[in-house]
Amino acid sequence: MTSHTEHSAVTVLGLGPMGRALAHAFLDAGLRTTVWNRTPGRDRELAERGAVSARSPEEAVAASRLIVVCVVNYDAADAIVRRGAVTDALKGRTVVNLTADTPDRARNTAAWAAEHGIGYLDGAIMTPTTTIGTPAAVFLHSGPEELYRRHRPVLDALNGTHTHLGEDIGRAAAYDIALLDIFWTAMAGYAHALAVARAEGVTARELAPFAKGIGTILPPLFEQAAEEVDNGMFSGEVNPITSAASSMAHIVHASEAHGIDAGVMRAAEGLARRAIGRGHGTDGFLRITELLNPR
Amino acid sequence: MTSHTEHSAVTVLGLGPMGRALAHAFLDAGLRTTVWNRTPGRDRELAERGAVSARSPEEAVAASRLIVVCVVNYDAADAIVRRGAVTDALKGRTVVNLTADTPDRARNTAAWAAEHGIGYLDGAIMTPTTTIGTPAAVFLHSGPEELYRRHRPVLDALNGTHTHLGEDIGRAAAYDIALLDIFWTAMAGYAHALAVARAEGVTARELAPFAKGIGTILPPLFEQAAEEVDNGMFSGEVNPITSAASSMAHIVHASEAHGIDAGVMRAAEGLARRAIGRGHGTDGFLRITELLNPR
Repeated sequence: MTSHTEHSAVTVLGLGPMGRALAHAFLDAGLRTTVWNRTPGRDRELAERGAVSARSPEEAVAASRLIVVCVVNYDAADAIVRRGAVTDALKGRTVVNLTADTPDRARNTAAWAAEHGIGYLDGAIMTPTTTIGTPAAVFLHSGPEELYRRHRPVLDALNGTHTHLGEDIGRAAAYDIALLDIFWTAMAGYAHALAVARAEGVTARELAPFAKGIGTILPPLFEQAAEEVDNGMFSGEVNPITSAASSMAHIVHASEAHGIDAGVMRAAEGLARRAIGRGHGTDGFLRITELLNPR
Repeated sequence: MTSHTEHSAVTVLGLGPMGRALAHAFLDAGLRTTVWNRTPGRDRELAERGAVSARSPEEAVAASRLIVVCVVNYDAADAIVRRGAVTDALKGRTVVNLTADTPDRARNTAAWAAEHGIGYLDGAIMTPTTTIGTPAAVFLHSGPEELYRRHRPVLDALNGTHTHLGEDIGRAAAYDIALLDIFWTAMAGYAHALAVARAEGVTARELAPFAKGIGTILPPLFEQAAEEVDNGMFSGEVNPITSAASSMAHIVHASEAHGIDAGVMRAAEGLARRAIGRGHGTDGFLRITELLNPR
């Protein structure tokens, strides 16, 4: 039932900026590609490049053995794939869901897919649309290794690095959440720093070279800290959490003295103070991981 | 009155980890160095290397034309330098205050110094103690350019890069606050990400290579964004703030579903939602700088 109508190597459901980037990369690699988007018109440029525009999601699904889903969140993904005709058409095929959401939603969707005889891999894209099709793209995958191996040649058409994180289907979403947590918290810090700097007469362009310098010391620090954190060790010899809390208090004070909301830093300082209050003042700041999530 | 007793090139007041690193670097550069610390005993290793251990801060001050102060905050600095005998001894000399605090405190101390005929430069050290004396050290200075030029040869003994940010005495502290804001917010994000990852069965060591990857994309992003922010432009074409808010909501949800406090991210998400509520949903996330500090 599934194989006779297949004429594409891959189907892309969802043609937002990321979905379009994925479809373009598949076309660039010379793969026959079928595309569909809920709102019409997003497929024009892709169709001009030879993509097949499906008239319905069930038709799109029937065109390929591998269906890549990339929409805004799992509510949107479910609204497409959990309709009877689409679910029926998916039977015996494989979905690679590159939609970002939580590990719970990935597990829920995997259970639904298993019930309906649908192969299911969950994935996450860790780099911007502009990297897709280039070596800079970073893709994370989780789910059955056999399925991943089978579809890897098509996924490789997207270029970049692909990492299979294991059979636990929630793993890609877990990494995604953790990495976005780092990214968006850091961006919130940068935005706040720019607001405080401007209040002090310092432009973003003046601060930028030094902000870059701070950004550059983070990656090695992240790596050095990882082993300590896994071992429940939090060396504060170079930089004790009391000193971090003191810096944070200066930031909150300088910010609020200009009428600038310091909610993000207040929350971070609160965690540091709580760790100190529990007797960990000579530990390093990452001691707060234990406070957030006791073993 | 001041010159006859001078026998050192520089005096270091405060021998915490950073003060000791500074004193060691001066000694490494072959400068005669006088040291003093409120709590005795911290000067032993330095004395063995030839530093002069002063018995009082006024004696330490009288030993050099340049006095480097590096203590925990300005309350601690004031407790040393604003005592009559020390203030008297400082007259006609120059203080370089490398203590971290807010721009307001720097301005207040500069006013006090001017009243007492003391030369005053404010500074900030942007890199860890281990960088002092190496090319990796980063020092920021603000205050009278003439004073800065006069003492630059001694400061250069610390190695690293020295930047004079201008005559506004609060400028080094303003940069310091903004850069620490970026640093500590990012570290809070990393700690939180590690806590969430662990709840999902992902170790810090497993996450670290990808966390490093996220860290690596920040510096160029900081630089690209700076010009936009200065111009009040916040392009959300690649990544609109609605999409950021959606990611943030996933992070909060996944965190709290494991009982993990998400206060930092909740505060950041709140800023994104407020910017969206004001009609800036298609702008980029850095639009929140305007919300935090309206022009």
